[in-house]
Amino acid sequence: MIRFECDYTEGAHPRILERLVKTNEEQTPGYGMDAHCEKARGYIRQACQAEHADVHFLVGGTQANTTIIASVLRPHQGVIAANTGHIAVHETGAIEATGHKVLILPSDDGKLEAQQVRDLYEAHWNDMTHEHMVQPGLVYISHPTENGTTYSKAELEALSKVCRECKLPLMIDGARLGYGLAAQGSDLSLADIARLCDVFYIGGTKIGAMMGEAVVIINDVLKRDFRYIIKQNGGMLAKGRLLGIQFETLFEDGLYYEISQHAVDMAMLIRAAFAEKGVCFRYPSMTNQQFPILPDAVLQKINEKYSCSYWERVDAEHSAVRFCTSWATKKENVAMLIKDIQALL
Amino acid sequence: MIRFECDYTEGAHPRILERLVKTNEEQTPGYGMDAHCEKARGYIRQACQAEHADVHFLVGGTQANTTIIASVLRPHQGVIAANTGHIAVHETGAIEATGHKVLILPSDDGKLEAQQVRDLYEAHWNDMTHEHMVQPGLVYISHPTENGTTYSKAELEALSKVCRECKLPLMIDGARLGYGLAAQGSDLSLADIARLCDVFYIGGTKIGAMMGEAVVIINDVLKRDFRYIIKQNGGMLAKGRLLGIQFETLFEDGLYYEISQHAVDMAMLIRAAFAEKGVCFRYPSMTNQQFPILPDAVLQKINEKYSCSYWERVDAEHSAVRFCTSWATKKENVAMLIKDIQALL
Amino acid sequence: MIRFECDYTEGAHPRILERLVKTNEEQTPGYGMDAHCEKARGYIRQACQAEHADVHFLVGGTQANTTIIASVLRPHQGVIAANTGHIAVHETGAIEATGHKVLILPSDDGKLEAQQVRDLYEAHWNDMTHEHMVQPGLVYISHPTENGTTYSKAELEALSKVCRECKLPLMIDGARLGYGLAAQGSDLSLADIARLCDVFYIGGTKIGAMMGEAVVIINDVLKRDFRYIIKQNGGMLAKGRLLGIQFETLFEDGLYYEISQHAVDMAMLIRAAFAEKGVCFRYPSMTNQQFPILPDAVLQKINEKYSCSYWERVDAEHSAVRFCTSWATKKENVAMLIKDIQALL
Amino acid sequence: MIRFECDYTEGAHPRILERLVKTNEEQTPGYGMDAHCEKARGYIRQACQAEHADVHFLVGGTQANTTIIASVLRPHQGVIAANTGHIAVHETGAIEATGHKVLILPSDDGKLEAQQVRDLYEAHWNDMTHEHMVQPGLVYISHPTENGTTYSKAELEALSKVCRECKLPLMIDGARLGYGLAAQGSDLSLADIARLCDVFYIGGTKIGAMMGEAVVIINDVLKRDFRYIIKQNGGMLAKGRLLGIQFETLFEDGLYYEISQHAVDMAMLIRAAFAEKGVCFRYPSMTNQQFPILPDAVLQKINEKYSCSYWERVDAEHSAVRFCTSWATKKENVAMLIKDIQALL
Repeated sequence: MIRFECDYTEGAHPRILERLVKTNEEQTPGYGMDAHCEKARGYIRQACQAEHADVHFLVGGTQANTTIIASVLRPHQGVIAANTGHIAVHETGAIEATGHKVLILPSDDGKLEAQQVRDLYEAHWNDMTHEHMVQPGLVYISHPTENGTTYSKAELEALSKVCRECKLPLMIDGARLGYGLAAQGSDLSLADIARLCDVFYIGGTKIGAMMGEAVVIINDVLKRDFRYIIKQNGGMLAKGRLLGIQFETLFEDGLYYEISQHAVDMAMLIRAAFAEKGVCFRYPSMTNQQFPILPDAVLQKINEKYSCSYWERVDAEHSAVRFCTSWATKKENVAMLIKDIQALL
Repeated sequence: MIRFECDYTEGAHPRILERLVKTNEEQTPGYGMDAHCEKARGYIRQACQAEHADVHFLVGGTQANTTIIASVLRPHQGVIAANTGHIAVHETGAIEATGHKVLILPSDDGKLEAQQVRDLYEAHWNDMTHEHMVQPGLVYISHPTENGTTYSKAELEALSKVCRECKLPLMIDGARLGYGLAAQGSDLSLADIARLCDVFYIGGTKIGAMMGEAVVIINDVLKRDFRYIIKQNGGMLAKGRLLGIQFETLFEDGLYYEISQHAVDMAMLIRAAFAEKGVCFRYPSMTNQQFPILPDAVLQKINEKYSCSYWERVDAEHSAVRFCTSWATKKENVAMLIKDIQALL
Repeated sequence: MIRFECDYTEGAHPRILERLVKTNEEQTPGYGMDAHCEKARGYIRQACQAEHADVHFLVGGTQANTTIIASVLRPHQGVIAANTGHIAVHETGAIEATGHKVLILPSDDGKLEAQQVRDLYEAHWNDMTHEHMVQPGLVYISHPTENGTTYSKAELEALSKVCRECKLPLMIDGARLGYGLAAQGSDLSLADIARLCDVFYIGGTKIGAMMGEAVVIINDVLKRDFRYIIKQNGGMLAKGRLLGIQFETLFEDGLYYEISQHAVDMAMLIRAAFAEKGVCFRYPSMTNQQFPILPDAVLQKINEKYSCSYWERVDAEHSAVRFCTSWATKKENVAMLIKDIQALL
Repeated sequence: MIRFECDYTEGAHPRILERLVKTNEEQTPGYGMDAHCEKARGYIRQACQAEHADVHFLVGGTQANTTIIASVLRPHQGVIAANTGHIAVHETGAIEATGHKVLILPSDDGKLEAQQVRDLYEAHWNDMTHEHMVQPGLVYISHPTENGTTYSKAELEALSKVCRECKLPLMIDGARLGYGLAAQGSDLSLADIARLCDVFYIGGTKIGAMMGEAVVIINDVLKRDFRYIIKQNGGMLAKGRLLGIQFETLFEDGLYYEISQHAVDMAMLIRAAFAEKGVCFRYPSMTNQQFPILPDAVLQKINEKYSCSYWERVDAEHSAVRFCTSWATKKENVAMLIKDIQALL
């Protein structure tokens, strides 16, 4: 069985493992106060062109989302998200467990539009009973989204503008950020991301690291006491240097982008193979996740040899599924998959 | 600077790193549903002589405590702990953040006595206004404690008996469990631990692993839906197999005990060196943490070469400090420290 | 200005005030442990034909909802509700503040259908990633709904059956329960309500009392330690007898039904007046809330003399509004309103 | 049985009832937006000499405490309180249920000293691991305390000074505030209270009202969105005017002080009767709560005719109990009690 079901089926990029082995005997202070974390912070600030940003390393995405959101909101505030947002669907109510409602907006492709945010904001404040309703206090988007789609620079600028006008901080879930930046046609840089939002994170778990997400806080107001909130949410790794070492490796000479590019290239090959056979896609993704709509009979055949994620039933005879690539996706496996696609469709 | 300040100053035991390297390219499902986790679960059940136990792998101790406690308690219930308990002091209110009060009992050495628990239980239920007070719903102890002290089998049996009579589940924070089992004079086995409590965890972070705590649920009532609570608390590692591989390595042939024994042996050498010089100890610890009370002038000298944790001021000229050992503590460093102790005191 | 904007514009039914005056000097224990509360509990059990029910008196509806839901759910569970449900919209996230997600189902008229609940339940348990999603743990409906609509006996039986099959407790928000029971065409009795759900409450605030909601717990499993949860949620009134006295008065000889009937009768007169003029209604309500859709120009005229609640814009020239009646609605005011409707439309 | 067990054994002061009867048919908007609430706010601002204060009416004390504390604190912060503080003991963990730890300081008489607060503050910030501990974010005191003791103006000024220097808002639980102001020897006015703290509340429930606490927010920073937090915590009474009417009555011409003085006078008579017989008191209370230490045999006799609250066992043959007075305490009952004291001791 060759696994394309998600982007975390293997361990870590070999260079990361090597570095962990090489540094293993070093003695460092705990909790992210070591020299590796400090170095990684420097690389990330530089990559973001955000020299005053605070950078914190957390283990996973749910933890990063919960910690950021709990830190930003007051008790009566909620976070605006697309109905497909990870926090709205796939975190077992972690946000609600911190006391906050996720205020969902409908989205077909996983993206929020600037106008939707403005409308929700105005609807709240124009309602005479607004004190009886959850106040919007933060906007959450994912880039790329859970559906592999991406914001253009113009779209993100529009969203950012509305958020600033409405005094709503904007956070970006970047669990797969690298794949978004490497997407065909993307005109967004890491510096744009940092410039246009208040807080975001750079995903490591799905892009070469064993685990780890680098939270980057741009807005000074959101920086205060963040380490307390990390600790309270169980996210302060004792051997924090393990995260520092990984991000140091990813960002010291561009490995992060290299990995991202490889995965996107592999995904584009798969995409092209499906497209050539006239297969439609559930979402217009140019990133490492591809969502072909396949006849059930073909899917069954494919699944004998390859795992993919079942996404949803489209009609009586077709299903949307998800194929993911990563740093670890082997060219020969993609070639074999393509050959099988050509044969089966 | 040679670090004795805590037991997480290095990476991981070399055999764990080796195994991570060796398995790195394997493709597995995520979230702890892989074969390595399953194998590790088997080893742990066997070591605990608890074949029906549920075993879950979490990343850290605060996370483990929060997840267990949030899973067990109803909203109006609190968890009984010593005033020195990790959950009462050093988790930035993580338990309260899940809505629960920590009901503290005074303790000089970090341990709870059976009679204290019974008294608190009876005081609650005999109070006519008990509905206005937090109901005790769980008992938390650490073994060894944060002060390095350990329960004897008789003490743990007495505590367990009271808990069962009071229908209070007993949980054991085993962040340093191996060191407790390896302590000189300890008459407790892992099987005793499993037999006498309802849920506990076996610490990996401080005993050879990069990170990871193995939660073992003995009591059937506490097993239900535990994975949901893990996910909600941000503790479900995407690449769960990383934890499985580590615990597999630690438990397949006794590495966990070996590491624990080494650390305790090193600690006993340090202890003996201090004791020979007439130094008193803040707590009677036979585990990997030692708490000598040193003249401030001596401490200053020691700190030029060795780091240790400042614990508390004892009098105008003396301070209690903590020296920790671990799998990574080198015999030559201990020898050098001993020589310096002999010279300085 | 004559107010029809809501059903809590006046104080309390005169007989309730009288009783409060008459009992004012009595000395009683606090917190609902007095003889009036006990008597009221008896009357309510009798009215519900539920002699083993637990009955608790709380001050308001949001409090009742929060207390019940917090008591029933485990941390990873959510409560199913219509998107129009009070808990989903108008309680400033009180449910989320206790850590729980409201799992919303679309509803046009405010009611949930049995099949919707079954579908959500099955979708959850059939999803392979269900541990990553909030588990349904309770079903919340309002009777009558926030839109004035009511369940028929057949509908409630179907819903109850699904809930029991899915092991999902069913709770009924009865903030306006009396008006539902008194609705034209209703075939549900208080005993039916008690028989078909696990916990519900009988609203007093909107039906003659100064304040107060009587929570009736039918299901034994849900009874445990409920008073603790009341206290924790700030709902245990010191002078609890004030609630007992009011419910005693409402239920000792049918005042509750009498008040409800009066309000519904008044509402039906208003409804008929609008209907005669060809006015459409936003919801098919046969209860004390009426939702006519009015030309904006007419609405403006009406609002010079009468207050009603603005509900929503229907088209460029029409708005839906809400007229409410209560125990305090005067026949002469209704007559005047009707005359004005006839003149204006 | 004549009840002295608490200060909420009767209904409301007759003038309050009268006013409720008189205003019963008035139509007003809900949720505290009516003219009575507005008028009451004006009277209270005037009484506090705090014309810019925000005034909100809540139903009960636990609700007031929870709402204020939840509004002020960020997630990682806790509230400092005496170990005897109501929030630390008698609210079933309501504060923890909002996610916050109560940071307790030892107190013999229920009061906090300025130096204690400063010491805790400094201990937190001087600890190198402070990010692993709950950050102090607010100071809670009760005036009078749960033990009937009161702060002098000098004491409150010292506490206020420390709080301001430490940037810790100071809140005062004034559930029995009137009794504190009326206490023999008290040199504090309502204006002093308002001047020296950031937020406090004026208790109605225990001082003549049916129910109700008037929260007064002095510090502008704490005013923002407070009504949302009230609603979220279930404290926004639909018929809010009921609270407004009561506080209007209490504050329009000094009834609040008159009631308080009566209760304190009655308490002083009881105190004197015990003292004359050589009885000691558990706390030096000059307010409406008296805590004599009585021989158990005498207590038994007294309890045949009078109820009081059992407080705690003092020695094998003596118990401390609590006698409370209120607006409703009848002179003839006090006279009878005194006679019995004289006969029994």
